[in-house]
Amino acid sequence: MSIQVAPSVLAADFANLQSEIEMLNASEANFIHVDIMDGLFVPNISFGIPVTEAIHQHAQKPLDVHLMIQDPDRYLKAFRDCGAAIISVHLEACPHLHRTLQAIRELGAKAGVAINPHTPVELLSEVAGEIDLVCMMSVNPGFGGQKFIENTFEKVKRLRSLLDSKGSQALIEIDGGVNLDNASRLKECGADVLVAGSFVFKSKDPQNTISQLRSI
Amino acid sequence: MSIQVAPSVLAADFANLQSEIEMLNASEANFIHVDIMDGLFVPNISFGIPVTEAIHQHAQKPLDVHLMIQDPDRYLKAFRDCGAAIISVHLEACPHLHRTLQAIRELGAKAGVAINPHTPVELLSEVAGEIDLVCMMSVNPGFGGQKFIENTFEKVKRLRSLLDSKGSQALIEIDGGVNLDNASRLKECGADVLVAGSFVFKSKDPQNTISQLRSI
Repeated sequence: MSIQVAPSVLAADFANLQSEIEMLNASEANFIHVDIMDGLFVPNISFGIPVTEAIHQHAQKPLDVHLMIQDPDRYLKAFRDCGAAIISVHLEACPHLHRTLQAIRELGAKAGVAINPHTPVELLSEVAGEIDLVCMMSVNPGFGGQKFIENTFEKVKRLRSLLDSKGSQALIEIDGGVNLDNASRLKECGADVLVAGSFVFKSKDPQNTISQLRSI
Repeated sequence: MSIQVAPSVLAADFANLQSEIEMLNASEANFIHVDIMDGLFVPNISFGIPVTEAIHQHAQKPLDVHLMIQDPDRYLKAFRDCGAAIISVHLEACPHLHRTLQAIRELGAKAGVAINPHTPVELLSEVAGEIDLVCMMSVNPGFGGQKFIENTFEKVKRLRSLLDSKGSQALIEIDGGVNLDNASRLKECGADVLVAGSFVFKSKDPQNTISQLRSI
């Protein structure tokens, strides 16, 4: 299987989202990654429902919505209604994670769990069967353009083993500081999907950068 | 003095903000109203820092930033840094309002206080001298397109008296459900600035709608 790529709109030009999304539509990207930050779960406020709706209106790829918000249960339906194909919630924000994952699937979306750098993959052992995707943070969430945390490689391997041992088909997505220097090794360790923000949008030829990531 | 108008970007096309802002630049609008919602202080997540930065990059009018967020002190500098000329915080979100207003002025911005429909104007009596603008909500904040609360007319009159009695030069801004049916009466009651979202952006000719509001 070739690696899948989910460019993150967080690094796009917010004054011209339509043309940014059209660029992604015409690229080899598999998903459009949408980073929602409330300023409380993470130390930044990015964007929310009306902006996601505008992205969805032009997107021809599935929206992979990453909720970095407190008490995400309150907004699952709102994000499903504005076009989320995958909804990921943070394990650290969900005291009733099993129920939250069921609620996402009941809305007809794929259920994802995001884990912060400090969170051991073993905390996913009881919900491995309820997850369609694990979004493993390889930086501390809140801002684009951060440096990849090396410890991630080992963590991906452990997660792959854990998911295999539970018979889970969940995709492993890596989010933060991904580039052509670490992409191949992430794939070897077991990653399925790479999120890339600045590395794609700040490059000279974003579509070509996406193709290069896809073809590692 | 003719009334001032602050179109709210909340009702704009988020896929094409640059052209929306250029339309406002070429209009008779006095400010660009920017509605920040964190999903906790109000039941919606609108947008935050990167989107405000993108607006600022193209705006030729002062940004009037309305923070509908919990504990706004954490983000005053971030919004000043991304171009806010006026920063309004909600009285209901500020247990230390006097200190917060001073912090806004120390950053070089104009200090505004927003009050929800249930909040009596008398709660502003002790800080009248520290305020450059009062944003009086004439709907419950969280969404565009809501119906104007009639009680607002009376409230504007009381606020005008209160500010006059304290020698305050603060502007009175009305936010929510403003249109050509209530604009003249709001001006008569003492309003200085009218925020208009859907009424401007969903109209056939937004620039003309702004001109009509300006010339009441």
